[in-house]
Amino acid sequence: MQNLTIVKVGGAVLEDIASFEDFLKRFNAITRYKILVHGGGRTATQIAARLGIKTKIVDGRRITDREMLQVVTMVYGGLINKNTVAFLQSIECNALGITGADLNLIKAVQRPVGDIDYGLVGDVSYVNTKVLELLLREGFVPVIAPLTHDGKGNLLNTNADTIAASLATAMSMQFNVRLVYSFEKEGVLADTSDSKSVIPLLNRELYSKYRHEGIINAGMLPKLDNSFKALEAGVKEVIITSSKAMNLNHGTRLTL
Amino acid sequence: MQNLTIVKVGGAVLEDIASFEDFLKRFNAITRYKILVHGGGRTATQIAARLGIKTKIVDGRRITDREMLQVVTMVYGGLINKNTVAFLQSIECNALGITGADLNLIKAVQRPVGDIDYGLVGDVSYVNTKVLELLLREGFVPVIAPLTHDGKGNLLNTNADTIAASLATAMSMQFNVRLVYSFEKEGVLADTSDSKSVIPLLNRELYSKYRHEGIINAGMLPKLDNSFKALEAGVKEVIITSSKAMNLNHGTRLTL
Repeated sequence: MQNLTIVKVGGAVLEDIASFEDFLKRFNAITRYKILVHGGGRTATQIAARLGIKTKIVDGRRITDREMLQVVTMVYGGLINKNTVAFLQSIECNALGITGADLNLIKAVQRPVGDIDYGLVGDVSYVNTKVLELLLREGFVPVIAPLTHDGKGNLLNTNADTIAASLATAMSMQFNVRLVYSFEKEGVLADTSDSKSVIPLLNRELYSKYRHEGIINAGMLPKLDNSFKALEAGVKEVIITSSKAMNLNHGTRLTL
Repeated sequence: MQNLTIVKVGGAVLEDIASFEDFLKRFNAITRYKILVHGGGRTATQIAARLGIKTKIVDGRRITDREMLQVVTMVYGGLINKNTVAFLQSIECNALGITGADLNLIKAVQRPVGDIDYGLVGDVSYVNTKVLELLLREGFVPVIAPLTHDGKGNLLNTNADTIAASLATAMSMQFNVRLVYSFEKEGVLADTSDSKSVIPLLNRELYSKYRHEGIINAGMLPKLDNSFKALEAGVKEVIITSSKAMNLNHGTRLTL
């Protein structure tokens, strides 16, 4: 099986052009195959504010009504996705910017209303691995915006971390998949006030222990839960590292 | 050679969901191969206004400064493109929404400053026919937003009519290309106050004559000039018809 690296990038790095371009150069240096999944929540919040639309976030997830869906469609599918593609093309990376609706890549079902009504938010139900593999084999580098569709003509807002994990899991049948979460910090920290306290290796057992002891920051838990689920489903390796360095030999490496 | 129909859609039809979906159903009925090129200027103007950005149009072309480029990237590349794709996917049309930056599909050079400085507007310099043909042969239906790139990392705003004509011309080496401009009117009118006065057939000679006599509305001239240039460059047929009917047996048929 060939290697496939799926990199998720989000957070502040997207807002600083120089840092982001630096990140993209490092992404481009990854030998094939590779996929980039980006977020863009901060920019969406800014554009929404300028349009007079209030952003509501519950448990880290954006409440997405019809107006907010328009905003994220513009920001994720247009602004961030297309500027990323244009830059990657300028450094000889044959990027193809898409959403889950394009080529029916990622289908989702609208999240049922529970305690919270997240609105037009989708939970991934299907990944079109066949078409994704075809794109990769053609030498294309998919750049994926965190939008899915329900197959009935509606776009849905879907968390970029979840999309990255879903793609990694689905593609692990055909590839040795490495999933990379790149973000502001150097890795998973044992002490959030100390950026040098990166936990180099984390397995299920250590994770349970650290979690139990309250060592790991609560904000990291969904990412880590997603990661261990992906590993259990066949993903070979998960790396949580800084988008500034994007050094795959640093950061926190997760294994089962 | 196989047939390829390139349809350009723009104007008011994009703003009325029911009419636009009706148009897309008719587009989907075209037997392969097919490409859709969309505009979206009216929506861009509205979103710009809501963001406090003034729209300046000179000779039917948008002056595009950095802020306006962000708006058209959001509106063309995101909002309109992705909603179109999601609807087409729901009616079994395997749409792929892209811009000229994706897969280096359409390169452009920023328009030199003449009497008017159009800003970040691109004139098409290169069409990647190889990748477009590959996408078509895979059964994908490209849905193209009117954005190009300069290969140096910058997106550029490019008129959708021009993109459609450029694609048609470039693809006419490999395909029997039919170029369809769908818009508000039934076709090219001999009398703008009479929607029934469609000129059914227009060749170079008749066009010169009508133009000389001032019969054809000035607003139609760039579209018609583009069309005749495309025909001269190898495009088999150009049809100017209503997006409401999208009946390729009606409207105005242009031949040399």
